Amino acid sequence: MPVNVQGTVDKILGGNVRTAAKLIRDIDDGMASSREVLKALYPYTGRAYIIGVSGFPGVGKSTLVDQMIEAYRGVGKSLGVLAVDPTSPFSGGAILGDRVRMQRHGTDPEVFIRSLATRGHFGGLTRSTRNVIDVLDAMGKDIILVETVGVGQDEVDIVTAAHTTIIVLIPGMGDDIQAIKAGILEVADVFVINKSDREGLKKTVSELEGMLAMSASGGSEEKWLPPIVTTEATRNQGVPELLSEIETHKAFLFSSGKTHLKERLRKRALRELIDTIKESLVAEIVQELENSETFEQMIDDVVEKRTDPFTLCDQLLAERFKQDL
Amino acid sequence: MPVNVQGTVDKILGGNVRTAAKLIRDIDDGMASSREVLKALYPYTGRAYIIGVSGFPGVGKSTLVDQMIEAYRGVGKSLGVLAVDPTSPFSGGAILGDRVRMQRHGTDPEVFIRSLATRGHFGGLTRSTRNVIDVLDAMGKDIILVETVGVGQDEVDIVTAAHTTIIVLIPGMGDDIQAIKAGILEVADVFVINKSDREGLKKTVSELEGMLAMSASGGSEEKWLPPIVTTEATRNQGVPELLSEIETHKAFLFSSGKTHLKERLRKRALRELIDTIKESLVAEIVQELENSETFEQMIDDVVEKRTDPFTLCDQLLAERFKQDL
Repeated sequence: MPVNVQGTVDKILGGNVRTAAKLIRDIDDGMASSREVLKALYPYTGRAYIIGVSGFPGVGKSTLVDQMIEAYRGVGKSLGVLAVDPTSPFSGGAILGDRVRMQRHGTDPEVFIRSLATRGHFGGLTRSTRNVIDVLDAMGKDIILVETVGVGQDEVDIVTAAHTTIIVLIPGMGDDIQAIKAGILEVADVFVINKSDREGLKKTVSELEGMLAMSASGGSEEKWLPPIVTTEATRNQGVPELLSEIETHKAFLFSSGKTHLKERLRKRALRELIDTIKESLVAEIVQELENSETFEQMIDDVVEKRTDPFTLCDQLLAERFKQDL
Repeated sequence: MPVNVQGTVDKILGGNVRTAAKLIRDIDDGMASSREVLKALYPYTGRAYIIGVSGFPGVGKSTLVDQMIEAYRGVGKSLGVLAVDPTSPFSGGAILGDRVRMQRHGTDPEVFIRSLATRGHFGGLTRSTRNVIDVLDAMGKDIILVETVGVGQDEVDIVTAAHTTIIVLIPGMGDDIQAIKAGILEVADVFVINKSDREGLKKTVSELEGMLAMSASGGSEEKWLPPIVTTEATRNQGVPELLSEIETHKAFLFSSGKTHLKERLRKRALRELIDTIKESLVAEIVQELENSETFEQMIDDVVEKRTDPFTLCDQLLAERFKQDL
């Protein structure tokens, strides 16, 4: 291992904040050098408990995460906090926005808060989020909180890295809860209905319970039924109950000879491997494509309908890998 | 070309609804047979005007799209309407939900409405959305409306297929508009503030105008400044103004020797080519991986930290492509 890689690894393992911040920037920028450090850090990961927090904008996730930080600090836990914002794919910069709400913990050496934005176009966000989680994990943080905006494919991919996934809703979302339910039912370990002072709480809870009951029936194997916690994060209501449900879920994962935990870790490893392969392959081929002398001509051919993307793809891959494909 | 491919192509070009519906299901299911049909249809695409409509759940997109259908029918245009729902990645089925709001057009032979959900995990939704747009285009529809839920990476990828992209907001989104602005500013051609009877309209409009003015300054080349249209879709207010702004944007794209249009079409062709390559490559490698005798062992090795995803990725690709990589 090169000296600078070993030096970086040692500093990360020692919890050095400046080195970690630099490495996270490099990961976000997709720098190849970060890959060697991540390889060397990998054996030191797997000790932190990772909690994902997802939900549409406006449900109060940041405030909730802030209260969770406070609560975990109260019982002496150190934290890594990662705010992931896949909604700004073109700006290239992490949106700070309401991150400031967490800033009361900014001077606490046991709390390390970072933001991550989308860089690149090849599914890199999911992969880089997992890598940053690994960095926080290797730093020795007890708890890692990952906050994502939205509940689309990107966010679901991201939360596959978590031990416990929390989906935050608010009362009165009406039809829209119906629309997102099918997808989130399968990834949620704990539901939070935040802003519980708002109108429509009972209806939202009972709708959600109905959906969960339907989804729970049928399967005969031992299964986790996601609890519903109501919170009012701005007034710190319901947060201890939320932490208690997270503990219960953790106990479930570690029960039965850790079979549930192992299943989750295997899923995560598979996704991580596929994402790494995807990114390596696609980045290389796209670069070759863009460097090719006939690149402009090829795109024009597609635009002018002289060929189609499928035929061109087959030709390019055949040239690239000769008889291999 | 095989007889059944030619037969399918002829029926699609003739506007046959049953054949189109079957082909769209095959595309959504990722069936290889659809690829040959799409290749053959490709030369017949490029005639429809494609309008993308994006925005978070609850902003009233479906109602707006329904009113747009009505307005375009009023001037004799035929329509293809595609509702894309990337929020249910695990359920595998298209969410019907509020699609019913468009059902007053369900018996109109000049309006063809379809839903598309996420199938597969390798960026397939963006690719299959573009393919379905091609099918609607080849059917001879004048206007294609594509409605997506959310404004994340998936949705942005999807709207790169559109000629005119509409981002729908509502008054009083507050901080959340701030958070999403950076990303959507660069993809929006027209902003709609729907539910304009709600409190906070003036503030939302002026915030948005401020952001747009900032983003517009600096560039010296001829540039499109997205207009802001206020609507109340449930009462059909503002819809004619919206259609008029879409026309203005279309005129812009077709002005200056179509340079703006060509730029957009080139971007679309590039994305389509990359997505096609990505999906072909990754699907093949993942399948090989899953069929491999050592697959379970490899995943266990990652979980147990005997290796890491980067090293394993390098090994797999080296084996797969021998000296090529």
